[in-house]
Amino acid sequence: MSNATEAKIKLECTRSPIIVLIRPQLGENIGAVARAMLNFKCSELRIVSPRDGWPNKQANSVSSGAGRILDMAKIYNSTESACSDLHYLFATTVRKRGLTKEIFSPCEAMVKADKMITEKTRVGILFGPERSGLENDEIAQSRSIISVPVSQEFSSINLAQCVVIILYEWFKLMPREEKLVSPRIKTKLATLGEIEYLKVALNERLENKNYFWPEDKRNSLQQNITNLLGRIPLTKADVKTLHGIFTTLAKKIK
Amino acid sequence: MSNATEAKIKLECTRSPIIVLIRPQLGENIGAVARAMLNFKCSELRIVSPRDGWPNKQANSVSSGAGRILDMAKIYNSTESACSDLHYLFATTVRKRGLTKEIFSPCEAMVKADKMITEKTRVGILFGPERSGLENDEIAQSRSIISVPVSQEFSSINLAQCVVIILYEWFKLMPREEKLVSPRIKTKLATLGEIEYLKVALNERLENKNYFWPEDKRNSLQQNITNLLGRIPLTKADVKTLHGIFTTLAKKIK
Repeated sequence: MSNATEAKIKLECTRSPIIVLIRPQLGENIGAVARAMLNFKCSELRIVSPRDGWPNKQANSVSSGAGRILDMAKIYNSTESACSDLHYLFATTVRKRGLTKEIFSPCEAMVKADKMITEKTRVGILFGPERSGLENDEIAQSRSIISVPVSQEFSSINLAQCVVIILYEWFKLMPREEKLVSPRIKTKLATLGEIEYLKVALNERLENKNYFWPEDKRNSLQQNITNLLGRIPLTKADVKTLHGIFTTLAKKIK
Repeated sequence: MSNATEAKIKLECTRSPIIVLIRPQLGENIGAVARAMLNFKCSELRIVSPRDGWPNKQANSVSSGAGRILDMAKIYNSTESACSDLHYLFATTVRKRGLTKEIFSPCEAMVKADKMITEKTRVGILFGPERSGLENDEIAQSRSIISVPVSQEFSSINLAQCVVIILYEWFKLMPREEKLVSPRIKTKLATLGEIEYLKVALNERLENKNYFWPEDKRNSLQQNITNLLGRIPLTKADVKTLHGIFTTLAKKIK
């Protein structure tokens, strides 16, 4: 990795929450977390006692180009050492816990995190191992809990997917210019005049073919057409296409 | 699967968007999609031409208990046949496409889907293959586009994670009683009177130990304590704990 990239990512660290995976079991999940972090512009990953050691081939293979997050990940052997320089910890859990601790939705939590990070608070988010989740001790060290809403009937959510949801809520708060969203395509909408002209031309052709018959149905048949053309968001190109279709249909083949 | 379960899931189908995976490549992703669907109470999965055939062992192994979604998944050999009974199609894409099509964020799209589904509209969401995404033809068949906001610098999002984000936005709209969220723990907050009593008791003990010295610092020292106790959200149990701590600290050991 170039020094410039590293410097840039370091700068971003101070502007995003720090992801702390506690005793993760599957490399695949660590890789998926790294990829999601890069999707949502978070760059600092800390890992406490990964079950299968470090580095992890599976993690690299699943990260799909987000290997630089894994290269920079810091490995610790205790939650305490991983978090000693942080100011605020969120614990993530979907299970009921008997602890007196404020509980936030992912969205509420990230609004809070964003505010804190702006004020130079270093915010970490703890994620427990796949099978068992965080231990009560780890939750007790945290200031509050993030609870991802899930179905009562099937609440076992994948570790990486839990990270994805929280970081997605984080990224939603970023300024629009940071995001790649498909650009709103500049559709040149047809004017009402152009649509009216299309309708008149259509009605003329239909008239020639005795469409408005019997006479007492004329008004309602015309209204149907007006209504139909009115509720379709037609572009200039659409109007042109329709003109072509109507003309062609009305043609007499010799 | 029991008949009752199947009936229940069928009922739910009519109440949630239908996930349509087009030519998915990795069984792991199909399994992860199934798990997320069950997390967020969506049950109808359709798969068009899965690369590695069907059923898929990897999908089952990753679904972690959501095998019933896979058991009920319907397999098709064309997008047209998979969608012929649907009324409204969303296409998902993060790439720029030259098509005139309305683009929604996941949240906007699910608000729209929810409204339509309430009105008995069958809504499908198309997801393209991992490597290439949906083809322009498939997007053209759709009524509108869902674009997941991602970083400009790393926009390659995992298929299952894309599904997760959209279904999470879907599930957020469900009534609270459907969700398993960690219950807000009934913390019995201390009353202002109880905190005042704690403060008085503390001040008394501090007074005995000449804490408020020199005299001209008394007010600011007392204010510090008032301020500290004021901004911690103390529970009744916390107040009891603090009484115990203060009493113990003040004890003379003989």
